[in-house]
Amino acid sequence: MTRIRFDEMKATIKQAFQKAGMPGDKADVCAQIHTESSRDGVYSHGLNRVERFVDYIGKGWIDVHAEPTLSANFGSMEIYNGNMGPGILNAIFAMNRAIEIAGKNGLGLVSLNNTTHWMRGGAYGWQAAEKGYIGICWTNTESCMPVWGAKSCGIGNNPFIMAIPHADGHIVLDMAMSQYSYGKLQVTRLENQKLPYPGGFDQDGNLTDNPGQIENSRRILPMGYWKGSGFAVMLDLISALLSGGLTTAGIDKFDKGSCGNCSQVFIAINPLKFNSQEFIDQAINETIQQIKTSELAEGTGEIYYPGEQSLKTRHKNMEMGIPVDDGIWARVKELANQT
Amino acid sequence: MTRIRFDEMKATIKQAFQKAGMPGDKADVCAQIHTESSRDGVYSHGLNRVERFVDYIGKGWIDVHAEPTLSANFGSMEIYNGNMGPGILNAIFAMNRAIEIAGKNGLGLVSLNNTTHWMRGGAYGWQAAEKGYIGICWTNTESCMPVWGAKSCGIGNNPFIMAIPHADGHIVLDMAMSQYSYGKLQVTRLENQKLPYPGGFDQDGNLTDNPGQIENSRRILPMGYWKGSGFAVMLDLISALLSGGLTTAGIDKFDKGSCGNCSQVFIAINPLKFNSQEFIDQAINETIQQIKTSELAEGTGEIYYPGEQSLKTRHKNMEMGIPVDDGIWARVKELANQT
Repeated sequence: MTRIRFDEMKATIKQAFQKAGMPGDKADVCAQIHTESSRDGVYSHGLNRVERFVDYIGKGWIDVHAEPTLSANFGSMEIYNGNMGPGILNAIFAMNRAIEIAGKNGLGLVSLNNTTHWMRGGAYGWQAAEKGYIGICWTNTESCMPVWGAKSCGIGNNPFIMAIPHADGHIVLDMAMSQYSYGKLQVTRLENQKLPYPGGFDQDGNLTDNPGQIENSRRILPMGYWKGSGFAVMLDLISALLSGGLTTAGIDKFDKGSCGNCSQVFIAINPLKFNSQEFIDQAINETIQQIKTSELAEGTGEIYYPGEQSLKTRHKNMEMGIPVDDGIWARVKELANQT
Repeated sequence: MTRIRFDEMKATIKQAFQKAGMPGDKADVCAQIHTESSRDGVYSHGLNRVERFVDYIGKGWIDVHAEPTLSANFGSMEIYNGNMGPGILNAIFAMNRAIEIAGKNGLGLVSLNNTTHWMRGGAYGWQAAEKGYIGICWTNTESCMPVWGAKSCGIGNNPFIMAIPHADGHIVLDMAMSQYSYGKLQVTRLENQKLPYPGGFDQDGNLTDNPGQIENSRRILPMGYWKGSGFAVMLDLISALLSGGLTTAGIDKFDKGSCGNCSQVFIAINPLKFNSQEFIDQAINETIQQIKTSELAEGTGEIYYPGEQSLKTRHKNMEMGIPVDDGIWARVKELANQT
């Protein structure tokens, strides 16, 4: 397996984005986020998404020059039009505004309509936590999962993120609504493995742990069966209603690639506005201790809090380099070096 | 099966609460919510919880006279001490305050520390939706579920509710973090049935759909395996940090019954502050249409949006009476009629 240093990967991605027409400062930020995602082990939304992002720019589905513009302002809440600008830049802007509002008021909510794929949603949770804020955010997507009881896709696999700042390692949950991502299905199939638990239905409607059969049927399983399905519907509707933007059904009509014209919500809360650092640390530490001192289940070596494994992967990949698929890495280098 | 009219059930529960020392006006509201829960098919937290609530009053774990008191105020956000008052009354108060704040600002967040069991969390989602507001709320609980990778209980089965107002029937998601409730396990076992999908681990650590084996092991399964487990941890920590209240680990130490000393968050958003009714209706209607016109999976008769089945049950139970377990109904009548 080839491993690439963070700085080399970022510089290469930045160059690819500049070659695609992005201004240098914007390309720098986007390259940073893509590289951080790969660094943290979210390979599917890091280096591996560079080519598709460049393709979307070429198709005119992303406007690399667009900036978010304020649509409405209600004290602790602001609504912005993302103007189809790069999803990463819009999302960073929105979470930063939510943090600024929360810095004054304790609580800030910023919504975005008409934005594009934000890549790894967890990035904006980590962003809030790095600044000492609780962050909650979600996005809707095009339909890519059957609602519970259906065999055709009708709902989005809308990621939901919650983050809590903590000096010893932020607590960050970054979960999509499906039990497994299509990326996980692909990787598992290529390794000739089965999924740890059923991840969808085969063509005949039977639950299966065979990743290839789920890729064929496109009947990926919502986490918790009906629960993840219902949660996806709520996240979709609330993101559209809070931003005045499109629902999954609306996104499907525009059909500008994955997450084109999507709606997003960013909430920031300043926990130090109403708690001492001592109280916060105690609450978090006693919770982590309670989790970690649980009696281990059969076959479990260690219990992790949400975000802990990302941090471990980050440290390892910063030390050893970030693992890449050779073909994908070669392709991104091509994009960076084309004339 | 015996069916009891709404008014008779409510009057009986109210009398039981008054006999337990509750003032009439408070008993009336609590009886209303318990009865509505049974009416909507959430039997486990309606009539069936009356005896335990009375027991908690007798033990001094609930102060029937306590009122919430303001701890802190930050514009769109307020924190209240629940003072161990009845969880239902505290929760109604908190969601109402969030709605009042949102009426002015578009967005309101109210948190409660030191409160007690709110019974059916969905009640407060329906409450917000009935007033035309989006409602989001959650609570933490004592530990009653193993964190992912553990066999001993370390995390709460923290319910999470999202509600969206809609004239044809509110869209309401009310989900706990376990795949099934212990109530569902019990009912399924008594019917000599298996669960539709695995709901926990047996004593040997194997996933099982046998409800009795899960009741024995106490190893109930988080929805979506590691996802529901992580979500439970986040909801717990954020409710404690937003309210200055106890975490699940802290609740465990006080040990005042189910949810005694718990922490809760209530968010209300006024969607009409920044959208026309026409836009809202279109977003909801196109989403429901997209869901309902999906190609049906094998064995599915109809696809429901979140909350739709509760509404159907409500109409049926209002027409035919609310089904009760004869033993439980007799016991509540005893509590109502004791001298």
